Amino acid sequence: MVLDKINCPDDVKKLTFDEMKNLASEMREAMIKKVDVTSGHMGPNLGIVEATIALHYVFNSPYDKIVYDVSHQSYPHKLLTGRKEGFLNPELYLKYAGYTAPEESEHDVFKVGHTSTSISLATGLAKARDLKGEKHNVIALIGDGSMSGGEALEGLNNASVLNSNMIIIFNDNQMSIAENHGGLYTNFKLLRDTKGKAELNIFKSLGFEYHYLEDGNDVEQLVELFKKVKDTNKPTILHIKTIKGLGLKLAEEYKELYHYIFPGMAQKLPDMDYEDNWTLIRDYIKKATKKDKTINLVSAGTPGATGFDEEFRKSLGSQYTDVGIAEQHAIGYISGMAVGGAKPVYAVLSSFIQRTYDQLSQDLALNNAPATILVAWAGISNGDATHLGTFDIPLISNIPNIVYLAPTTREEMFKMLDYAINQNEHPVAIRIPLVTLKETGIEDRTDYSILNKYKLIKQGKDVAIIAAGDFYELGIEVYKKLKEKGLDSTLINPCYLTGLDTNMLESLKNNHKVVITLENGELDGGFGEKITRFYGNSDIKVLNFGSTKEFTDRIPLNELYEKYHLTPDLIVQDVMNIISEKAAL
Amino acid sequence: MVLDKINCPDDVKKLTFDEMKNLASEMREAMIKKVDVTSGHMGPNLGIVEATIALHYVFNSPYDKIVYDVSHQSYPHKLLTGRKEGFLNPELYLKYAGYTAPEESEHDVFKVGHTSTSISLATGLAKARDLKGEKHNVIALIGDGSMSGGEALEGLNNASVLNSNMIIIFNDNQMSIAENHGGLYTNFKLLRDTKGKAELNIFKSLGFEYHYLEDGNDVEQLVELFKKVKDTNKPTILHIKTIKGLGLKLAEEYKELYHYIFPGMAQKLPDMDYEDNWTLIRDYIKKATKKDKTINLVSAGTPGATGFDEEFRKSLGSQYTDVGIAEQHAIGYISGMAVGGAKPVYAVLSSFIQRTYDQLSQDLALNNAPATILVAWAGISNGDATHLGTFDIPLISNIPNIVYLAPTTREEMFKMLDYAINQNEHPVAIRIPLVTLKETGIEDRTDYSILNKYKLIKQGKDVAIIAAGDFYELGIEVYKKLKEKGLDSTLINPCYLTGLDTNMLESLKNNHKVVITLENGELDGGFGEKITRFYGNSDIKVLNFGSTKEFTDRIPLNELYEKYHLTPDLIVQDVMNIISEKAAL
Repeated sequence: MVLDKINCPDDVKKLTFDEMKNLASEMREAMIKKVDVTSGHMGPNLGIVEATIALHYVFNSPYDKIVYDVSHQSYPHKLLTGRKEGFLNPELYLKYAGYTAPEESEHDVFKVGHTSTSISLATGLAKARDLKGEKHNVIALIGDGSMSGGEALEGLNNASVLNSNMIIIFNDNQMSIAENHGGLYTNFKLLRDTKGKAELNIFKSLGFEYHYLEDGNDVEQLVELFKKVKDTNKPTILHIKTIKGLGLKLAEEYKELYHYIFPGMAQKLPDMDYEDNWTLIRDYIKKATKKDKTINLVSAGTPGATGFDEEFRKSLGSQYTDVGIAEQHAIGYISGMAVGGAKPVYAVLSSFIQRTYDQLSQDLALNNAPATILVAWAGISNGDATHLGTFDIPLISNIPNIVYLAPTTREEMFKMLDYAINQNEHPVAIRIPLVTLKETGIEDRTDYSILNKYKLIKQGKDVAIIAAGDFYELGIEVYKKLKEKGLDSTLINPCYLTGLDTNMLESLKNNHKVVITLENGELDGGFGEKITRFYGNSDIKVLNFGSTKEFTDRIPLNELYEKYHLTPDLIVQDVMNIISEKAAL
Repeated sequence: MVLDKINCPDDVKKLTFDEMKNLASEMREAMIKKVDVTSGHMGPNLGIVEATIALHYVFNSPYDKIVYDVSHQSYPHKLLTGRKEGFLNPELYLKYAGYTAPEESEHDVFKVGHTSTSISLATGLAKARDLKGEKHNVIALIGDGSMSGGEALEGLNNASVLNSNMIIIFNDNQMSIAENHGGLYTNFKLLRDTKGKAELNIFKSLGFEYHYLEDGNDVEQLVELFKKVKDTNKPTILHIKTIKGLGLKLAEEYKELYHYIFPGMAQKLPDMDYEDNWTLIRDYIKKATKKDKTINLVSAGTPGATGFDEEFRKSLGSQYTDVGIAEQHAIGYISGMAVGGAKPVYAVLSSFIQRTYDQLSQDLALNNAPATILVAWAGISNGDATHLGTFDIPLISNIPNIVYLAPTTREEMFKMLDYAINQNEHPVAIRIPLVTLKETGIEDRTDYSILNKYKLIKQGKDVAIIAAGDFYELGIEVYKKLKEKGLDSTLINPCYLTGLDTNMLESLKNNHKVVITLENGELDGGFGEKITRFYGNSDIKVLNFGSTKEFTDRIPLNELYEKYHLTPDLIVQDVMNIISEKAAL
């Protein structure tokens, strides 16, 4: 095996082209085997193997700096930079992150997991180099639909006038996560079709030197190209055409589905017949769009993450828009649609709604545009530090005018969807949890247009449990355990994360000593703190349960729950401590 | 006067070209006279007079929809849409907002004050129109440097594939707020130089139909051009070259300075000899950059707003970067620079740091990049709803890893700058208030690397006042008034908005009944709530003082202070209410 000889980038430099080709095959085999066990980004990594080998053959990392966009195509890089054990030894499969991580290796410059950042980060590195009078190459590797993101476009605009060394490798695999959208991609196609020779060239328009490579999976040609531009003193674009998923038949054929795979998918197509919040929402949208032709479903390049498969998307026709990876535009777009009298519904991951705070504030909230936003993957998880779902409550709920709803059951979710889509008063966001919501069988008849009206589920005394969204189930557990301890507590489903039911909260003062809040997200700036502030000048004690302000990185959920006191037992213990203190007085 | 006859856009349609030219002069005169009294955007509005007349001559607002980017060039539009009294009658000078405002007129589609949003909003309007089977024109008017903003670029990418009517008027006045930067502007110059004929054309690359007009201040040619594209079924760019400041000599000559003018400036150049926080920072940076060649000062297109005049910028040479209006890129760029070992200092308005939440989180905080951010114009103000400085504490302080400092004096500000720039551990933001910080004459010897150590200014009992940043002065007033009432209270300057001094807070429990927090910003998700949560399970009462979660719009500061209980008397009254309640028990 060639891979046996590779322990650092210097070892790559000693290889012949034939060995490099064999190395590429071995790397693919290792990655497929590993990712098929652990889950992970398959398609993007398979496409970039040769370019990564060529990079380490020509350039001198870590002296030269390579910045991977999203860094979900950094597995080959990890294989070549001292971390191959993480791909070859099943016991170490989980040792390394799925993204670049400076704490793992000096060859990883940044921790990156959101798209479209590489050009800006690399421009900064290049500027630092110039200020310090250093001479190394700075390389940004970007692809996979990242180019349409605002930060990438802003970055291109500024990188092009840097007036010194800066090499942007544009890995054009003809795909975003799903198919590509927008005028940029029309230009990229034209450039591919003309082998880079078309006059209309967005990169040249911006002032870049531009090179095109038709076979971006040919290591020999890649090496030649990289050698040509090494130590250039001009901002340069290398537009290389690669094949996403190369080397795994299923990934080559089902490019979107195999962007990220789950265990077993390397062997066979997954069973798509399951039910979760998003398949339910999909069916709901299908029916709703048939009845109302002004409903438009919007995704920003990640329809798969919310279960919007190709068949479904096609069935919606012009009632579906994928704006590509362009979350800011998505919010401007739905704001415009809502003000224009249509009914947009935008589905976006909790972690990615971060990319659009100002648009939420200025385009949407300030105009009270009655658009609907579905926030996906929301909540504490064992995920990578770059894809946490814990920050959306502080982000959204401190912006005026937005109504942020948290369903606790399937019926509530549907009723909230009905309300959000058909009202004309407010921007409404609905927090869709990671766990599949339970069906109660009882129709929800709530009128959600009466804002901030909490649901009093059980009227008790002494302790009140305000349990939001999918932590309502946790609230029930706490309620039961307190009952076991002889406490007849009050249980409340707040439904709204953006406002207080001051009447209900006021009434709790009469016969309650302790109020606890449960939310599946960051406490700082979150829902619970607003309740605590309400009670600040009263005798009621308040305990807030949620996550700490921190970036957690692949920590098992049960560990996080222990740490944050998010188990029924730990919560009850904290409550009892206060109750007994009070009793002792 | 032609203007006498104009009460709505229909009146414009009846004019001859000669009358339109006279109208343009009359509008300019009215605007200059008014803005010279009230302050306001001068340059951009003077440049767009003819285009606005031509728009209303050719198109049918409000049937056709016109979206103004930033909408700081909507004064001519206001003059023609029933609001001329706001420019002609000095008593009504303040009646209308400086930006488009749907509550004022059916001709204003959105409330807009941040740049780069018009294309996305208009794309949404166009999509709504198509879904509803309607036929009107949708027009976005963008210029003044807005084109480099991420949302505008994302919007271009998607507008170009809309496949129906969408007209983008690109008002190229060869300026951002300051001069333009980046590859885009190089291309715009090429297009101007070739009268739109250059082959390298970014708009055509994206798939737009493209028209160029050399004299964008000629109403006749504008009418001809607009007529040509009216009812087009293709996304179309009209690149019109205009003269910023046209009609006011000083504004034509000093384009940057006269972008926004203050009273009297229409008559003569303002006196630039004053001292405020930003002139102090400017002098500090001047010295610091001379000593340390790795310091780089960064602005995102608004250097004037932080007092970075042209002479100063030039004096920094390559140690100054203006990335243009591209706040996301700015954060990526400084993150890259900091990780690369340089010392970036980015000055940005509180209202505009909103444009970069995800970059703060992912590029900066997750990488613990030791960059310095100076947050300007922070605090409650009588400003427009689109430019409030109240949201930055909730925005920044709930992101992990960032250290957010709030100086209370000039000496602290300098010491915090020293610390932020020269440390290598954390991203550090410093909140620069609107009021000029006082000089104490006493050197600040604090070691700010010991995080979250609050300063105990006066040790008292019963009441503790935690007064942050520029509200520290308010804290002193409250302290004095409480003293008059016989209360010997504790006064604390927290310095840090991002963390708690748990030791100090814990010790307050011993002999305090009430803790109050004062912060110049939104309470929801802000600093005070964190203190309240800390005391949630204790007997201490906590009152948080700050602003409510709302968009206020040109409300006088004293009214806001009354409403929010931010005067010493109102605060003391609230405190005494609790103290006497407690005493009565």
